[in-house]
Order: sequence, then C-alpha cells, then structure tokens
Amino acid sequence: MGDGAPTTRYALTLEYDGTPYMGFQRQAHGPSVQEAVEDAAASVVGHPVTLHAAGRTDAGVHARGMRAHFDSAKPLAPFRMGEAINARLRLAAEAVAVLDCVEVAEDWHARFSCIGRSYEYVIANRRAPLVLEAARAWRIVQPLDADAMHDAAQVLVGHHDFTTFRSAHCQSASPVKTLRHLSVRRAEGPLGADHVIVAAEARSFLHHQVRSMVGCLALVGEGRWSAADLRDALEACDRRRLGHNAPPDGLYFMRALYPGD
Amino acid sequence: MGDGAPTTRYALTLEYDGTPYMGFQRQAHGPSVQEAVEDAAASVVGHPVTLHAAGRTDAGVHARGMRAHFDSAKPLAPFRMGEAINARLRLAAEAVAVLDCVEVAEDWHARFSCIGRSYEYVIANRRAPLVLEAARAWRIVQPLDADAMHDAAQVLVGHHDFTTFRSAHCQSASPVKTLRHLSVRRAEGPLGADHVIVAAEARSFLHHQVRSMVGCLALVGEGRWSAADLRDALEACDRRRLGHNAPPDGLYFMRALYPGD
Repeated sequence: MGDGAPTTRYALTLEYDGTPYMGFQRQAHGPSVQEAVEDAAASVVGHPVTLHAAGRTDAGVHARGMRAHFDSAKPLAPFRMGEAINARLRLAAEAVAVLDCVEVAEDWHARFSCIGRSYEYVIANRRAPLVLEAARAWRIVQPLDADAMHDAAQVLVGHHDFTTFRSAHCQSASPVKTLRHLSVRRAEGPLGADHVIVAAEARSFLHHQVRSMVGCLALVGEGRWSAADLRDALEACDRRRLGHNAPPDGLYFMRALYPGD
Repeated sequence: MGDGAPTTRYALTLEYDGTPYMGFQRQAHGPSVQEAVEDAAASVVGHPVTLHAAGRTDAGVHARGMRAHFDSAKPLAPFRMGEAINARLRLAAEAVAVLDCVEVAEDWHARFSCIGRSYEYVIANRRAPLVLEAARAWRIVQPLDADAMHDAAQVLVGHHDFTTFRSAHCQSASPVKTLRHLSVRRAEGPLGADHVIVAAEARSFLHHQVRSMVGCLALVGEGRWSAADLRDALEACDRRRLGHNAPPDGLYFMRALYPGD
C-alpha cells in the first residue's frame, strides 16, 4: 500500500476448473488462475493485488479447496470481499469461485504457513469415452485392482527420495519428501463402482509427484507392475524408471492444512 | 431396409451432457442428441437410421443411462457396433457416449416396451457459484431441510392428476400418472454434504413433471411451503398453482426399466 493505512490479510478458499488455464501461476503467454483472481480482487479494492497460494497447480489440474491470500487496505468485511470477488469472476466468465473468505493474522501465509496439502486423483475405470466427466477424470479401460493398488501404494508412504516421481522442471531444493498418506479406493460412481480414487497427503509435494505416483499405481492396478516393481522404481531414484505420468484431468487439490486448523 | 435382408435391433445405453443440445429429439433449428447418434450410426452402417428412445429429455437435461434402439441389416456384432458409434461420436466432438450396445428381439421397443423410468435431480446447496459443477446442478443458496423435503415428497407419491406439475406443451393424453417413488436425501459432495438429491421413478412422466416437483420441493426445503401447501397445489390440478419449475441443469435421466430386467 505504501500509505501507512492498516492492511487486512484476506485468506480465500478457491474452487477452480483447471481446464481453461495454463495453471495456477500467472503466465505471460496465457490465462492463469492467479491472474483471474488477482484481476477480480484488484477491481474490487482499486489497487494491484498479489495472490499467494498453498500450491501452484499445473495446466488442467483442478481445485476444490485451494487456499490463497492477499493484502488490502480497503476496509471491506471478509464476507463482502468474497462476494465481490465472485461477482467479478462471474462477469469475466472465469472458471473460479471463492468458497470462503476470512481475515487472517498478518503473519499467516497461504504458502509458507501451510503444513499439509492433500490431493485426490479420480480415475474413471470404464470402457466408454467420458462425457459428463470429460476433463474431470482419467479414463482407464482395463479393470483395475484397487486393492492391489492400495497395498502397493504403502511402499511410497514415508520419508523417501522421490527423484523417480519428480518432473525435470521441479524447483524444489531437495527430492526428499515425507508422504504421510496414500490410499486407493473404489468409489460409487453415479451408476455403480466405476471410480478409483487415489488420495495423497504430505507437507509438500515435488512437481508432478502425485501424477507420477498415480501413473505407476495404475500399472499396478492393471497387473503390469507388482508392488516390488514400484519399490524398485522408488529406490532407483531415476526419472527414467518412472512407469507413467498420469494426465492432469483427474487431479484435484483438495485441502491445505495450517497450524490450529 | 426394403431389401428383405434380415435386420438386427440394437439397443444402446447412452450417457450425454445435455448442455450443448436443444434436447434429445431431432430439431430443425439446432443440435440434438438424436441427430448426433443417428448420424454416427448411419455413418457406421451406411444407411439412414431412426433412433427411438425411452425418454425425450429437454434442452440442458443430462442422461447417465438413456436407452434407445435402431435397426440395421449391417452384420456387425453389438460390441463392435457400440465401439464404432463411439468412434464417430468422438470424431464429431459430440457430448454423447454409448455405454453399452446389445442385440434385442425385434419386438423390443426402447419407448413402448419401457415399464419404468428413473431420474435424479442434483441440487448444490451452497453459497458460492458453481464451477466444477456448472450446468450439472441447480445451485440453491438457502440451507435446505432435506428431511422436510422428503416427508413432503410422499404427498406426491401414488396415482394422481399431475396437471399442476405439467408443462403447457405436454403431449401426454392424460395428466394422470402413478409416481412410484420420490425421495430426497443429502449426499456427500466432494467437500461434505452440500448436495441434495431428489430421486423419482414412474412408468412415465408428464413433460416438466420432475422439474416442477423439484421446484416445489425446494420451496418446502427453504421453509416457504409446507407439505400441506404441496398437497393443495397437487389437488388444485391447476398449473398456475405451481410454485416453481426447477432449471434443467440438475436433471439426469438415470435408467429405463424393461420386462425381464
């Protein structure tokens, strides 16, 4: 602000459809979630806004509960701020909505205060092309053994060097992460149990880590990899040992966790 | 066919996104599900095809399990027929997929043999605009009392004159129908119980009947109508007593039932 006016830190919970965006992060060459929300917020508060988020999702990746924050000296109740941003987002026909807007302490940071991130990956395990879930799930035709996937997934849980499951573009200082939770379950789709859901939770993830883990778990589900193959790939710490990188369509950023939540 | 060649009757199970279509039925002035499937099937079998369906859904109404049939003398195994139609539908970028294709007896008729039709209506009961469910649900901001809706819904179950819940454009010979089942339940949405699902089943429905019933049940859920108000509206047999007609977005044709199923 620069004028000494007291500023408020607003924390947003965002839902977005990743399909029309180049990813969360602002890009020079195309639309981003960050740009959509920054522009909407700036038009509400009357000054440029910088948005910080718990995660920077890739092109085509969705969010049901991304957390982000920005500062403003504009004296607006958080509820009204959220409503006003939603009104601007709708006017601009953006595929983003504010689910919640609250005031947080000035030292609360959507990215740096975050102590847990959870994702879900939706596989539509069916033969027919996706229509109602187009761009919302990864279709795998071959019947998957979700129990075998879940058992194998436990190989990846814990403190490991995840180099095999890391994009070449990853900017993380270290490939070592602690995966707290990785589970696979069949879930009721609208006409029966045709969904396989992979849930992952960690303090933080490497770039492409969830999609890379899901791609390899799918090989397990199809019977092409064993749990031992998955362990070998992990222990090799070699990106060339990656079985498969799952497409972005099925990936959802679900929740960010903060101290005191 | 006209050439005396033996014909096969193919029964399809269809999923479609109703958003881009004027409705199921072929229209002179815009795209329809019927045209999309007839064109795809015709291109597979090499002759014009007429599709008959269990229901003719309106513009914007979706299907997860519509049944339809057509005849062809082209000797193609049903599985291959379904795959070939799907390939044509994808090439044409249609929002329709064949979930299943089987051969049926020559006197089986998707519309006239059908003895039960079931629909689900999805209400997203939340404040924020819909993003991932845009055009897939009806957003109602005010918290709904799903139990009160379910109790009131039982007023409509049974053999009644449904004139109040019938579109002026309805072509049915009689406004009297037997509603076998009408239930309302809260369902787990991705981030909690923010969905309210209305399920309806009958041998057949009047035009707009499900949407009209859902619109009135929403008034009950909001506390603006009692079950007695709903009963009065039903017994009035007067379209002007309709409380509200729900939008097509949340409506899904789920299943068609046939003798022997």
